[in-house]
Amino acid sequence: MISIDKTSDKPLYHQLYEELKRQIIDGELRAGYRLPATRTLAATWSLSRNTVVSAYKQLEIEGYITGRAGSGYYVEKIPAPLELEYTVPSYPRAEEEADEKKLTYDFRYTDLDLNIYLTRAFRQSMANAWARAESRTKNYYDLPEGSYHLRASIARELHALRGVNTRPEQIILTGGHYYSLLFITRFFPRSRYSLLMEDPGYPAVWDIFQQEKYDIDYIPVTEEGVDTSRLHQEKNKILYLTPSHQYPMGYVLPINKRIEILNWAVKTGSYIIENDYDSELRYQDLPIPSLQSIDKNRRVIYMGTFSKSTSPDLRISYVVMPMGITVDLRKRFPRFSPSLPLLIEDTLSDYIDRGEYRKRLNTIRTYSRKKHDFIISSLKKRFGSRVKIHGTGGGLHFVLELDTSLKEREIIDTLAASDVRVYSMKEYWAQKERAPENLIFIGYGGIPLTDLPKYMAALGKGLEQVLAK
Amino acid sequence: MISIDKTSDKPLYHQLYEELKRQIIDGELRAGYRLPATRTLAATWSLSRNTVVSAYKQLEIEGYITGRAGSGYYVEKIPAPLELEYTVPSYPRAEEEADEKKLTYDFRYTDLDLNIYLTRAFRQSMANAWARAESRTKNYYDLPEGSYHLRASIARELHALRGVNTRPEQIILTGGHYYSLLFITRFFPRSRYSLLMEDPGYPAVWDIFQQEKYDIDYIPVTEEGVDTSRLHQEKNKILYLTPSHQYPMGYVLPINKRIEILNWAVKTGSYIIENDYDSELRYQDLPIPSLQSIDKNRRVIYMGTFSKSTSPDLRISYVVMPMGITVDLRKRFPRFSPSLPLLIEDTLSDYIDRGEYRKRLNTIRTYSRKKHDFIISSLKKRFGSRVKIHGTGGGLHFVLELDTSLKEREIIDTLAASDVRVYSMKEYWAQKERAPENLIFIGYGGIPLTDLPKYMAALGKGLEQVLAK
Repeated sequence: MISIDKTSDKPLYHQLYEELKRQIIDGELRAGYRLPATRTLAATWSLSRNTVVSAYKQLEIEGYITGRAGSGYYVEKIPAPLELEYTVPSYPRAEEEADEKKLTYDFRYTDLDLNIYLTRAFRQSMANAWARAESRTKNYYDLPEGSYHLRASIARELHALRGVNTRPEQIILTGGHYYSLLFITRFFPRSRYSLLMEDPGYPAVWDIFQQEKYDIDYIPVTEEGVDTSRLHQEKNKILYLTPSHQYPMGYVLPINKRIEILNWAVKTGSYIIENDYDSELRYQDLPIPSLQSIDKNRRVIYMGTFSKSTSPDLRISYVVMPMGITVDLRKRFPRFSPSLPLLIEDTLSDYIDRGEYRKRLNTIRTYSRKKHDFIISSLKKRFGSRVKIHGTGGGLHFVLELDTSLKEREIIDTLAASDVRVYSMKEYWAQKERAPENLIFIGYGGIPLTDLPKYMAALGKGLEQVLAK
Repeated sequence: MISIDKTSDKPLYHQLYEELKRQIIDGELRAGYRLPATRTLAATWSLSRNTVVSAYKQLEIEGYITGRAGSGYYVEKIPAPLELEYTVPSYPRAEEEADEKKLTYDFRYTDLDLNIYLTRAFRQSMANAWARAESRTKNYYDLPEGSYHLRASIARELHALRGVNTRPEQIILTGGHYYSLLFITRFFPRSRYSLLMEDPGYPAVWDIFQQEKYDIDYIPVTEEGVDTSRLHQEKNKILYLTPSHQYPMGYVLPINKRIEILNWAVKTGSYIIENDYDSELRYQDLPIPSLQSIDKNRRVIYMGTFSKSTSPDLRISYVVMPMGITVDLRKRFPRFSPSLPLLIEDTLSDYIDRGEYRKRLNTIRTYSRKKHDFIISSLKKRFGSRVKIHGTGGGLHFVLELDTSLKEREIIDTLAASDVRVYSMKEYWAQKERAPENLIFIGYGGIPLTDLPKYMAALGKGLEQVLAK
């Protein structure tokens, strides 16, 4: 008995195919059984012969039956599928996913409240990029390093803004710092290099290098910069630094240490990763020159991002490899594929080339400076020397040092009770025993300037309670 | 002597800072030298005192000088930078970069000539995504797995089109198959799993697993599918398969081997990577059901891409992890960052949700089927059995088997002499000694249907010469 519904939307051959397939799987048609000739089956069920031919053909392509010349179609031997018992895993609903309770006054670091999508200039750049996409006769895979055009725009811009000396050919575009670091591990394998890391530092860095099984050592960093006395005996290292605005502490690495480190790298065959993650945001003074700009010996791997100067959801970061290293990924790693959408790359290069990126930076800088200054003055007015502010002068975060003997967890919980979310500093220390208890991390990129008085009032109230304990 | 140009656009404090910095670096101002008091220097050079204070402050931030309370500013000891001699590396000009000469009739695989950016529906989806971006009060980092909304759209669509059973929570969005495979290595570490790979297969796969230091073994694949007799003694494997359209040969894995392989995976604690890279492009018959759709025991890791159904430059691929595995990247790999721009994710989910993706698939399928049929009929008419065509029925490429004793290189060169570019097949074999000499790879995704007669005439002419040798 074959069940076929001639009034269904599903083509008859599709129904016949499914029906026969079911019969074979269920064992109603046994292995070795010879199917009726197409003509016969068609006549029996008042189907066109084509319908039967198409159904048989699909079954043959998928291996349920085999045609033998002059003899017809036979059912294949199909093993019985194993089936184990499982319980369906339960998922939290997407809204419930948050690990921590949502608080009203959240000093989250990575948000940005200046919405670039609202600007006419960025919209125009997207329209220009779209027009370019329309005019292409083919869609294709670009170079694995990313768009040459955007890399040229970035090379020019980095030279003008950060003194970075590079050719577009030395730049690799990536979908974020995670991928930038991953690329670096490909060029500097653990068989030849190990990692030296500033401590406190950025945990993502040591996580990625650990995942890739590198040996890792940590150098304490203080207001005077990393402890360079630790470098002398080291060879073939990758030294990770944030010299212009130490992450998370916000210190500036002094010039004598910069030169000492560059000289050390030359003498020991080492390289320095300079993560210049927020140096475009400098408020009180001139920008701090990049380490790459004074490196005469090509020891600096420079990395940066557009997350803070455009939007974190654009996912555009980059690595500038030292001149002595051949980047050409098609030759070195022929299986790498480009990771950024061409439309987004073209939008950004248009935005840079028309001078709009530079203007946007000024807008962000002016706006963020107001937040920066407001936070400092409101903390100073209320707390004086009871709260020391680390990392002033740039960026979108501060580290607050509190005159308290509370544990970090107690500080964060006390503030949470006042509906204020601040962030742990301890996670930034690899050597946990060195981590102080009385530091907290606050970011202000996502807080609108007009809301800042409310945020600071709430933070101030919470801090009063912390300091009173 | 201080050189300051009062007519310059550069602020005076900036000029003074640069001049003093130069003097310190050049040793004109020695370490320990006490700088003139700000008031004195200002009076000497007719500058405002503020100008001098700002310049000193910047020099202090960067570590060139140090202020001592009540005593003034002193020059720091700055080590002399080492400077080695280098020759500037030379780069080929971007236009000269191509490895191989450009030929008129290029049967490149990865191009697409159907330009999605020219469609009203895709433009509308981008506009809708932009409107959503404008309405956000903050820009932020999304989940590392990528947009939940798009993952939900994909889960729905995969179920409808490919019978794939998944929750959005099991999907990870990536910037391409390279990154999809990289994610898989993170979930299935080499300490517990080794790779089994169909041969011929996709070299990117073994490259990536090799880079990650996995043990790799290869199983020959023929028209009857992979040699499953090779599986019995294997345990804890990741078996890489392209069951619906073997890459590169184009075979369909028969149902009995599918079930055999699924049963083997259950019994041996192994997993199967199903790369369903082009199964949406099936022309003559029904789509081939995915392996994931008949997997009752959660052994299949399913991966796919939007490169062929939208545009390769959009860079959207995905991995569907088996239900038994907890994906939650924030918990498992807290340092992963999302790799796709939210704007592109939102565009695609809008495009899918409005039913436009389904329509587009039909357009592409109808259009590509015409190319597929034209190529087959033109080869059959001209060459009959002298050219065997592998991989008909779907996709955007064929493998041609030629009745010739020429070496592969000679075949490719003979065709190149006729201005025709075809591609090597040998690179797809890991076990090179098994690779036949008389196969060539042709792709047709980038060749407009209207140009196809010219392309096939040129290819035919070239093949005549190959077969005559």
